[in-house]
Amino acid sequence: MPWTRPDSRQPDQLRPILFETNYSRFRVGSVLAHCGETRVLCTATIQPNVPKFLLNSGKGWLTAEYRMLPGATPERQSRELMQLSGRTQEIQRLIGRSLRACLDFERLGERTIIIDTDVLQADAGTRTTAITGGYIALGLAIKKLLEVGELQESPLKLPVAAVSVGLIEGEPFLDLNYAEDTAAEVDFNVVMTGNLDLIEVQGTAESGSFSRLQLNQLLDLAQTGIQELLVAQQNAINSTYQ
Amino acid sequence: MPWTRPDSRQPDQLRPILFETNYSRFRVGSVLAHCGETRVLCTATIQPNVPKFLLNSGKGWLTAEYRMLPGATPERQSRELMQLSGRTQEIQRLIGRSLRACLDFERLGERTIIIDTDVLQADAGTRTTAITGGYIALGLAIKKLLEVGELQESPLKLPVAAVSVGLIEGEPFLDLNYAEDTAAEVDFNVVMTGNLDLIEVQGTAESGSFSRLQLNQLLDLAQTGIQELLVAQQNAINSTYQ
Amino acid sequence: MPWTRPDSRQPDQLRPILFETNYSRFRVGSVLAHCGETRVLCTATIQPNVPKFLLNSGKGWLTAEYRMLPGATPERQSRELMQLSGRTQEIQRLIGRSLRACLDFERLGERTIIIDTDVLQADAGTRTTAITGGYIALGLAIKKLLEVGELQESPLKLPVAAVSVGLIEGEPFLDLNYAEDTAAEVDFNVVMTGNLDLIEVQGTAESGSFSRLQLNQLLDLAQTGIQELLVAQQNAINSTYQ
Amino acid sequence: MPWTRPDSRQPDQLRPILFETNYSRFRVGSVLAHCGETRVLCTATIQPNVPKFLLNSGKGWLTAEYRMLPGATPERQSRELMQLSGRTQEIQRLIGRSLRACLDFERLGERTIIIDTDVLQADAGTRTTAITGGYIALGLAIKKLLEVGELQESPLKLPVAAVSVGLIEGEPFLDLNYAEDTAAEVDFNVVMTGNLDLIEVQGTAESGSFSRLQLNQLLDLAQTGIQELLVAQQNAINSTYQ
Amino acid sequence: MPWTRPDSRQPDQLRPILFETNYSRFRVGSVLAHCGETRVLCTATIQPNVPKFLLNSGKGWLTAEYRMLPGATPERQSRELMQLSGRTQEIQRLIGRSLRACLDFERLGERTIIIDTDVLQADAGTRTTAITGGYIALGLAIKKLLEVGELQESPLKLPVAAVSVGLIEGEPFLDLNYAEDTAAEVDFNVVMTGNLDLIEVQGTAESGSFSRLQLNQLLDLAQTGIQELLVAQQNAINSTYQ
Amino acid sequence: MPWTRPDSRQPDQLRPILFETNYSRFRVGSVLAHCGETRVLCTATIQPNVPKFLLNSGKGWLTAEYRMLPGATPERQSRELMQLSGRTQEIQRLIGRSLRACLDFERLGERTIIIDTDVLQADAGTRTTAITGGYIALGLAIKKLLEVGELQESPLKLPVAAVSVGLIEGEPFLDLNYAEDTAAEVDFNVVMTGNLDLIEVQGTAESGSFSRLQLNQLLDLAQTGIQELLVAQQNAINSTYQ
Repeated sequence: MPWTRPDSRQPDQLRPILFETNYSRFRVGSVLAHCGETRVLCTATIQPNVPKFLLNSGKGWLTAEYRMLPGATPERQSRELMQLSGRTQEIQRLIGRSLRACLDFERLGERTIIIDTDVLQADAGTRTTAITGGYIALGLAIKKLLEVGELQESPLKLPVAAVSVGLIEGEPFLDLNYAEDTAAEVDFNVVMTGNLDLIEVQGTAESGSFSRLQLNQLLDLAQTGIQELLVAQQNAINSTYQ
Repeated sequence: MPWTRPDSRQPDQLRPILFETNYSRFRVGSVLAHCGETRVLCTATIQPNVPKFLLNSGKGWLTAEYRMLPGATPERQSRELMQLSGRTQEIQRLIGRSLRACLDFERLGERTIIIDTDVLQADAGTRTTAITGGYIALGLAIKKLLEVGELQESPLKLPVAAVSVGLIEGEPFLDLNYAEDTAAEVDFNVVMTGNLDLIEVQGTAESGSFSRLQLNQLLDLAQTGIQELLVAQQNAINSTYQ
Repeated sequence: MPWTRPDSRQPDQLRPILFETNYSRFRVGSVLAHCGETRVLCTATIQPNVPKFLLNSGKGWLTAEYRMLPGATPERQSRELMQLSGRTQEIQRLIGRSLRACLDFERLGERTIIIDTDVLQADAGTRTTAITGGYIALGLAIKKLLEVGELQESPLKLPVAAVSVGLIEGEPFLDLNYAEDTAAEVDFNVVMTGNLDLIEVQGTAESGSFSRLQLNQLLDLAQTGIQELLVAQQNAINSTYQ
Repeated sequence: MPWTRPDSRQPDQLRPILFETNYSRFRVGSVLAHCGETRVLCTATIQPNVPKFLLNSGKGWLTAEYRMLPGATPERQSRELMQLSGRTQEIQRLIGRSLRACLDFERLGERTIIIDTDVLQADAGTRTTAITGGYIALGLAIKKLLEVGELQESPLKLPVAAVSVGLIEGEPFLDLNYAEDTAAEVDFNVVMTGNLDLIEVQGTAESGSFSRLQLNQLLDLAQTGIQELLVAQQNAINSTYQ
Repeated sequence: MPWTRPDSRQPDQLRPILFETNYSRFRVGSVLAHCGETRVLCTATIQPNVPKFLLNSGKGWLTAEYRMLPGATPERQSRELMQLSGRTQEIQRLIGRSLRACLDFERLGERTIIIDTDVLQADAGTRTTAITGGYIALGLAIKKLLEVGELQESPLKLPVAAVSVGLIEGEPFLDLNYAEDTAAEVDFNVVMTGNLDLIEVQGTAESGSFSRLQLNQLLDLAQTGIQELLVAQQNAINSTYQ
Repeated sequence: MPWTRPDSRQPDQLRPILFETNYSRFRVGSVLAHCGETRVLCTATIQPNVPKFLLNSGKGWLTAEYRMLPGATPERQSRELMQLSGRTQEIQRLIGRSLRACLDFERLGERTIIIDTDVLQADAGTRTTAITGGYIALGLAIKKLLEVGELQESPLKLPVAAVSVGLIEGEPFLDLNYAEDTAAEVDFNVVMTGNLDLIEVQGTAESGSFSRLQLNQLLDLAQTGIQELLVAQQNAINSTYQ
């Protein structure tokens, strides 16, 4: 019996997306990214210094943080104190790597950009929403720096967006929600650039295994979704004025 | 030269307040409380167990957590890891004590209510907004439990609300924003019940000292503000249906 | 039935106080402060540097630490390792703020004073005893610095002392001991300067609430006790020679 | 100019492998796995209990730890204390997931298997060597349990092995050593089962991005290497007697 | 040029000792032990339970804690938070082992004795003073338990006392103070029972090394000092009534 | 009934020793030291800087770390995270002190030597094996620095070796293995220089106590063993070429 999506979507259909830009009054770039019921607050902060290993290199840096509010999930989750969980650290590292791929650090100069991504509500796909939204916060921050003349040319090389795909009962689906994520045998997170090259592929079989053929079907679906997200990102950045 | 309020308010005037109830889909009670530019997300979780010291007592408990998102303030603040700051712990304890004052724990029975208060944007008065909003999240949670028949009678004894007051250039002002908070010589946080009795008074001279007369003027102002907040809380709870 | 004090004191009567000055051979100022059965060892250390935020400001700083020995209480308390409790941090911050109110930091110059307050025995009122004793340790340290010519004029502006008051069965009492502290509905800590202005008021209803009238009665009692403590502090400092 | 491998290997050639089984006298299964100059000590411990979430489920569990000795790398690395690095946690989680894929936990029964993987010398590929060696330690432990009659039938479903592949100057290479790993633009870790299905694919562009075509070339190479490793694993297990 | 003791003592002469028993009102046994200018507050707490490894064994346990107040030393020492120093842990373990040697744990029954030793002032010899004083606190606690009938026969097997000895300019000296401790090439801590058998010998060459002959001279001196301490301990315990 | 050694050794006989030098490809000096079934990997790293307290002193430093792999012991031991155990810290400090005794730090110059000692397999005597092996790693590192001309003259003053001895059923034995260590009433670790002077003596009665006579018998045995170890160390260093 094939899987019926709980919200009646087509296998290759994204959940409704909404990007509330300039959500945070005190940040140079910010967005509350909605992807279905998943909501991630992404903010950008720019600091006039760099980590030690880049001192006097003329190059900047970008780092990302990811955290879930305790009330974001059906079952309340305790805050992480003392030690970040392995999951949180993995996600932070993935977001940071993905967004660093957008930037020409020489053009950025010796500045550090911090992208904070805080999940206010979690209905699966939080890490990919954090990347997609994080790019918008980043884009808005760069736009602002260009407007005020702090930067002369944009250090953004290419947009970046991410989506999750998965196998449920052997069939590929795009942008799983929580119920689907739980049912999936195989879970992929895919990050692509604006020209649809891959930056990151992370695929895990939660049970069983998957074939090369299935892997390729999943990547096809991911590409479809990311194309749509790239358009929505661009619209959100272009239509925001401060 | 007397102090002119940056937003032209009267000395005894609150900032605009807005309570977006049911903000969090997965919580039994929640509100995004706006107090001027200050925004605190307050959510209530109810767990079917109690801390050790109350096991088999027939009584419940309430605990509160408070945290600020790193992007909430003009200067980004690092997340607290390893060790909560003294400030955060003080505030958490204050919120917990204040909201416990609302409850008849025997009527609640052996349940623990967790009130999470996360500051999305901070323009001063975050701890008092967390108490005022925390009461709404609590009230909505209790309302829900009564509706579904999990509780037969309400364990709520009295509403509770809080506000800050302060002396600037020797004169008392209600509900300081960040610019005022920085300028104030004396800073008070006042928590009152629905019948305008005091639950908590915390007054600190940041510079100099204050007289008994000034203390009484500050408490008069606080009472004015809290009366208004109590009405707004009640409206928010009454007009929310799930 | 009105409350009878376990040690037969009048409602406005302090417990016996004793200040053993110069208790610590290696410290520039020190006192073992006895307040009834409560004993707090207060020592002052002066270091020739300041925290980062005061570098090259010409101003000094004062910081306080508070800790309870595990054997100080009827029930042994584990030492705080890894994470200071919220209670300990609150108390440390209160002691620090109160004693900073005594000092003209420009006159002190770029020095940091550390006041360590260690409770050897706890029969309630430990934080107020730490403030009152801490002032003596501070006063002795300044006296010494003036004697040896390290300072030309005293940076002490005003003495500071503190006391607790509380409501038991609705009636106000001064300087509660442990049995009374446990019975009290409302607990206040009050810090005043030598001219009886307020520096800090912290009042908490442990059960129920309190009226404005009761608050004023409690502050009257606190003022009575603090006047007595200020005299005893001065005597202790004046009669100590090194 | 195309990349010349520092050790003159063909692009699809593994480094020399050596599995010293029963390396640890006190463990039920162990191997010192050499993959070129990379050496990972893998040991298996079996404990007669399970984590809380599996109590009375009749099912067992497997967990893995990964750590690098400080002297393993050209630049000495400090031991991780207080907080495991994100990298270490990611690797531990990957090893655990990969080896859990081998096991039928109902057949294992309520036992926990701990696979410790300690890198004595690191010349890249430590995580894949830990998975490949970890499977041998696991296999030897199960063999022992069958021999002594503690288990009646083997809970091993399928062997698992892992290898790294990467793009250097746009061309795919199998089993990178440290010099190659540093030069690679894209780095993949691939885990496969004995029937050459995928369990885990992790590909990251360190600089630039990669195409779907390149991804497929890399997976072809990985499959070649894993086939060879699967044979060597089986030989190592079969030829070990206790 | 031979070493002249700063306080004119003979090489085999102890510093003046004073044991203020029953120093802590809330403890079953306590003493403020003075050894010259060194002052250690030793308290005993008895708890009606045992560590896990002794559950249902019928046997009790003793554990010791050691800490130095920050104001105890000429240079203020920061409190140990997060991680106890190796020195503190070594000393705690030594005190615990030494005092456990006094006890017949079957006679004690399933109780845990905690000996807290807090150094109020440190002029060298703090660990040996903690052992010597810790025995007094222990002895008084046992005496109390016998008096109130909680124990029928004493679990104390033998008294234990400790002293430090050292080589300065090649010559042996008993009970070094801080100035001597700093000058010593070799430092020994010796713990003996009431019949002058050894329980613990810890000798360390801070510079150079030492011969078997010198080791024997040092142990002779230690024995002389410990004999004297054993008498003083017994007097302190016998002359204390509660 | 006298103790029969499980491996039929004479009371004064060491276990078989084997020093596999240059075990670690990336270290300037290294050895896998086997002492019976005990195996400790000792590596030396030299860093071109010194701790703060030696800056601009012209002197170098040596520090040691000790850790046990979780699979080293019959019962798997959890890794130490967050807080090193007291045992581990004691051992690290002992190894560091012992190896510092070998060095003329002025000749070494402002360099820090780190000796890492990781126990791969533990059959008692791990700390003494770490000292004995640590000296070999140190000696090889110095030899290398002399060969490449980084040092002109050797900073090694004297070799150092260590061994454990103990009393079992009242009789002294050399170099206890795990079974013997568990049975021993008294446990000694002895560190000596190449001319058989003592650097460190640590003797502990696990049960009962020991006499001066027994102490001397134990030190005689230790001297016998250390003489043999010193010869083996020298052979290992001399026969190693890089």
